[in-house]
Amino acid sequence: MREFRLIDQIRKQFPDGPGVLLGIGDDAAVLQLPPEQVLVVSTDTLVCGTHFLPDADPYALGHKSLAVNLSDLAAMGALPRWCLLNLTLPSVDMPFLTSFLEGLHALAKAFQVSLVGGDTTCGPFAVSITVLGSTPAQRGVLKRSGAQAGDGIYLSGTVGDAAAALARRLAATPKHAYFDARLDQPSPRVALGQALLGLAHSCIDVSDGLLADLGHICAQSGVGADLHSELLPLSHELRALVAPRAARGYALTGGDDYELCFTAPEANHSQIQALSAQLNLPITRIGTILPGHSIVLRNAQGKRIKQPQRAGYEHFST
Amino acid sequence: MREFRLIDQIRKQFPDGPGVLLGIGDDAAVLQLPPEQVLVVSTDTLVCGTHFLPDADPYALGHKSLAVNLSDLAAMGALPRWCLLNLTLPSVDMPFLTSFLEGLHALAKAFQVSLVGGDTTCGPFAVSITVLGSTPAQRGVLKRSGAQAGDGIYLSGTVGDAAAALARRLAATPKHAYFDARLDQPSPRVALGQALLGLAHSCIDVSDGLLADLGHICAQSGVGADLHSELLPLSHELRALVAPRAARGYALTGGDDYELCFTAPEANHSQIQALSAQLNLPITRIGTILPGHSIVLRNAQGKRIKQPQRAGYEHFST
Repeated sequence: MREFRLIDQIRKQFPDGPGVLLGIGDDAAVLQLPPEQVLVVSTDTLVCGTHFLPDADPYALGHKSLAVNLSDLAAMGALPRWCLLNLTLPSVDMPFLTSFLEGLHALAKAFQVSLVGGDTTCGPFAVSITVLGSTPAQRGVLKRSGAQAGDGIYLSGTVGDAAAALARRLAATPKHAYFDARLDQPSPRVALGQALLGLAHSCIDVSDGLLADLGHICAQSGVGADLHSELLPLSHELRALVAPRAARGYALTGGDDYELCFTAPEANHSQIQALSAQLNLPITRIGTILPGHSIVLRNAQGKRIKQPQRAGYEHFST
Repeated sequence: MREFRLIDQIRKQFPDGPGVLLGIGDDAAVLQLPPEQVLVVSTDTLVCGTHFLPDADPYALGHKSLAVNLSDLAAMGALPRWCLLNLTLPSVDMPFLTSFLEGLHALAKAFQVSLVGGDTTCGPFAVSITVLGSTPAQRGVLKRSGAQAGDGIYLSGTVGDAAAALARRLAATPKHAYFDARLDQPSPRVALGQALLGLAHSCIDVSDGLLADLGHICAQSGVGADLHSELLPLSHELRALVAPRAARGYALTGGDDYELCFTAPEANHSQIQALSAQLNLPITRIGTILPGHSIVLRNAQGKRIKQPQRAGYEHFST
């Protein structure tokens, strides 16, 4: 299997979609944005040994590599359109690669995202994906910096499952369909992100852990937050798996959930509830944005409780 | 040094440029393309041990990581505007990183390219850069697939220098300013690429080696080529360094030159010569596009000569 044949195979598997004037196979792709739209671009790298284990399921890895990037566009309220794949492999393992591309392809197809280019190189196993999307210029995007005192703080879905799943896997416990899916095949909340344009003041996806990611919103908005630990949306599976204190730890500091954390004014609360019903996706209010700069965690009695130590995942932390 | 401080430093060093509605620091960048322009996007990965040696000069590596990507946009005739940086490092070596970013920054500034996002991760050393540029929709791009029988085949600059430089380095010969610069700090031919819109029928940048890259033009255009080996543009330095046969081998099969190889109709020959003078960049006609599908190499007497064996660099070749 040579590089150019590999590229040919990828090209056949991923036909050009809307807006692709020139796709895979030249020095660059040529893309046409609809009129009056602005471009929204993000990129994420997954490295073997850091972001996934060497024995990762290739189909799930193909899914996840794209999902974490789509999640970034979701957090901006943008519509994903195209992606580029940088794939570095020590050698070409065709069954592995075929399955990886199938996982990537299935998610790309579900979101009508075209693969328009990339690079295949030889080296330690890593995947970088760049996603390109758009949003109408007059609607703008959901920034981290827009939170205002008085905003409700909301979370989609449930948090903590991916961290619990990783802990299970590292402890070599038996497979568990629910947790494995939550860790390996996250669902980017693309429809929710777009629906929040005009409703939410700020938004981020929970990739590093709730406290860390809400911390980015607070820092960039110049505000603080009051969080109510008993309001954290935990799955039945997580509640059944571990004690309440451990579940809360996973929910607050575990990464990889790829739910959206957003803030919105009180006036939009009923619209957000309606949106939750419409998308068939739980959306839970977990606290309130306050003046100041610190995130305070409270129990059911409103008493301040200590935050878990590990405040989200950070590369190169010392 | 933590990840978020590293990102802050990068953000300070790379201020937002034109068209950047939202730059580094959110879940994605938001970019505004000028009206009536189409987007041109490319990405390339450089892996330590595959594309550069572990003791690579960091400033030059920062330059080269961006240069190879700008070269892809040059080959399309596009104007580079923005870039994203995915940087994977085993640990944070601040002097190395500072120098790397300086090299990247200097080239980005020279081409007015803004760094608008990226990802820093922990793992084996590798750099992926994605470049985004544009071109007026009605002017189109330079494709690989447009070559026509009768076109002249042209090369900018000289070829073979980078391959000779790599051979010198692998043999641990003393430093040589000319060759080191040709290998480590290639000049993307951005102005030439844009000027060729409307003049050239097809174009590619010479990254894998002239025979391999011209081979892509021929394969995608459904044509063959006659090349005249004595017309290959070789630097004085290369002629002085090795015997003619070795120089020709470097020129035909050595990669990493990042010159443009393009084809253009006879009628445009004088305009191309004028362009060469205007850009102060040698442009040499090295052969002719013919019907068929093979690349034939001829000597000064017009006799067919054997091609060197190694037809360009390809990952995963067996």
